[in-house]
Amino acid sequence: MIKAQTLKGFRDFLPAESRKRQYVINKLRGVFESFGFEPLETPALEYEEVLLGKYGEEGDKLMYRFTDNGGRKVALRYDQTVPLARVVAQYGQQLPNPFKRYQIQPVWRAENTQKGRFREFLQCDIDTVGLFSSYADAEILALVYEAYKRLGLDIKIKINDRALLSEISTKALGVLDKLNKIGEETVLIELQKTGLSLEEAKNLLNQAKSFKASLELQKIMAAYQEMGYSENSLKFESTLVRGLNYYTGIILEVVLQSDINSLSLGGGGRYDKLIGTFSGQQVPAVGFAFGFDRIIEAMDQLDLFPKDLTTTKVLVTVFSMELGEESIKVSSRLRSNNINTELWLNTETKLEKQLKYADQKQIPYAVIIGPEEKESSKVVLKDLKNRTQETLLLDELIQKLT
Amino acid sequence: MIKAQTLKGFRDFLPAESRKRQYVINKLRGVFESFGFEPLETPALEYEEVLLGKYGEEGDKLMYRFTDNGGRKVALRYDQTVPLARVVAQYGQQLPNPFKRYQIQPVWRAENTQKGRFREFLQCDIDTVGLFSSYADAEILALVYEAYKRLGLDIKIKINDRALLSEISTKALGVLDKLNKIGEETVLIELQKTGLSLEEAKNLLNQAKSFKASLELQKIMAAYQEMGYSENSLKFESTLVRGLNYYTGIILEVVLQSDINSLSLGGGGRYDKLIGTFSGQQVPAVGFAFGFDRIIEAMDQLDLFPKDLTTTKVLVTVFSMELGEESIKVSSRLRSNNINTELWLNTETKLEKQLKYADQKQIPYAVIIGPEEKESSKVVLKDLKNRTQETLLLDELIQKLT
Repeated sequence: MIKAQTLKGFRDFLPAESRKRQYVINKLRGVFESFGFEPLETPALEYEEVLLGKYGEEGDKLMYRFTDNGGRKVALRYDQTVPLARVVAQYGQQLPNPFKRYQIQPVWRAENTQKGRFREFLQCDIDTVGLFSSYADAEILALVYEAYKRLGLDIKIKINDRALLSEISTKALGVLDKLNKIGEETVLIELQKTGLSLEEAKNLLNQAKSFKASLELQKIMAAYQEMGYSENSLKFESTLVRGLNYYTGIILEVVLQSDINSLSLGGGGRYDKLIGTFSGQQVPAVGFAFGFDRIIEAMDQLDLFPKDLTTTKVLVTVFSMELGEESIKVSSRLRSNNINTELWLNTETKLEKQLKYADQKQIPYAVIIGPEEKESSKVVLKDLKNRTQETLLLDELIQKLT
Repeated sequence: MIKAQTLKGFRDFLPAESRKRQYVINKLRGVFESFGFEPLETPALEYEEVLLGKYGEEGDKLMYRFTDNGGRKVALRYDQTVPLARVVAQYGQQLPNPFKRYQIQPVWRAENTQKGRFREFLQCDIDTVGLFSSYADAEILALVYEAYKRLGLDIKIKINDRALLSEISTKALGVLDKLNKIGEETVLIELQKTGLSLEEAKNLLNQAKSFKASLELQKIMAAYQEMGYSENSLKFESTLVRGLNYYTGIILEVVLQSDINSLSLGGGGRYDKLIGTFSGQQVPAVGFAFGFDRIIEAMDQLDLFPKDLTTTKVLVTVFSMELGEESIKVSSRLRSNNINTELWLNTETKLEKQLKYADQKQIPYAVIIGPEEKESSKVVLKDLKNRTQETLLLDELIQKLT
């Protein structure tokens, strides 16, 4: 027999988990749309050449690539930024300018799963394409702050201007990038491994630490405050690097105010050279990627999910085959009053088992219609959380559950 | 330069299209949840052996299969029913019984695109697993009717009992399946090609046409009516076959009442032998797959989408660099009053161009704050549909747009 199993790094989301995901998606979507961002969807499969070479060597290695039945070299979506660049080149004038889009789709990476990474995960991106403007950058900061707040997460946004770091070699930047994780001492050691003397390493670190916010960054921060957000939610960090090489201006990274480990819950920045790849024109852009899995993890730990994510309000039980029709009618009546109602579908199940099922699905109420109730045109409503029950007329039941 | 293009059979969904999709998904999800169905998500990639051989030869041929970096044979999700079977075997007791789940995810098939088919498309499925019960089947009918109605589609549900057809050979069933498309005459010709004489072919066709609804089908129809639905929405059609071999009881297919071509907008049925494949136990199941693309096409043709799917309510324009701060403040104020507000992000754009942008994005209102307005603490509100405008206090603006 074939074993029922998923591939390493791939996950099923059973209802309880899937509902949490849907909750976060709905909240994010609401915030995105409140700022005028519009949805975009792109295919899971692209021509390999569209994606290849855009993510560096590491990216090419981690990309799922294969030859399809028609002999085409294809690859699975690795992120949503390169597909966005393709869309911008492909549809040009059809798109509004600026093009403010959000995109919420899975991506696939053949990651080392030992690091707790997944090979399929949802990306939630917002990007403003076609504008070089401090307002555009400030709006990303505002939206980001608003989105995490809406989820109940108290964050700070670390910011830096990648242009400040332009004089520092890529190798040294790679080391600096780890400053928060490994500390200054180790950074100095690792900098020396890139060929610097201890003296030079110290100078470089001090130089990086001493950078002041650029004029552009100051303009962005001013606009952010004009939008009504407090400076306290931003933290200029001159040693913030963020891995991706394609950033050209502001870079940002979100961490919890309370998190001493500075675990990133999302990041982004300005990248003015990537979007134009397909058209040969320079197209400025700024964007942010929400760390969907990390957000759910943090919300779980902080107990931020509502207790009542179960969408079913009531289970209408079936007392006996003879009384099945009564239960059917009550359930239809409740549903037509916009009450999410599950009808028990088997006329031979013991009541106890039906109630256990409601508990397992975390349905808060159960309705019972026995012979007495049928006689008096009433129903018994069981509150499954408080373990109480009352006898009600159908109209009273509807009122109670609405 | 690399050409910006999508693969044949794969589609981008720009905002206007994506919003329609989201509209349909939300409606369907709402109906699914009103009947107590819960969301499930499974991975895009599965072990090849999990999917292979479940869809017949044709399926194996159309499946996207490849070997991953770790040498594993993998395949892209071909439908959502086999993954459901895997989930049922893998999680067993963790799942409620019956397991009523819905699943809305893309699937991939290397279809012949000349037939207007896509290689990536969204599937919307509901299934009730673990029950052999006419109530369960009737509930699927009720949900299906309710869902299409909620989308504005006036449908009829063609039903049959696959068990009635069990004596007819698979080859002849394949021919019968096309009755609606090719007509009786051609069916007789094609039946003869399977080896029957004209006499035998006529007998078989007459036999199929003369079948009466089975007892089980009658029970299901009765329960459907008890649920409050009219018999007129069902049509027993003894020659309805539906391609898939795995059906064991009721089969159903949805068509528009008005459609003489009987184009299928979705279909399903009872399949009591598939879900148990991974566990070796028989697990009864009944389900339905909504034809997502066909539904959108029909709704487009019948003009059933709301005119105001654009989620942005108002564009706050920027009059000049000096007045940028005013526009920022107004936009933040509107947004904090739950009005979806886009702020124009460039202080140097001519007003005319900003208004054109609002038109292109179908944003219904624009706000202008010029020097006079700033002076008098007012704003100009332009109604972009009716081409009217009025001058309002900020509080009046909020009231107007709420």
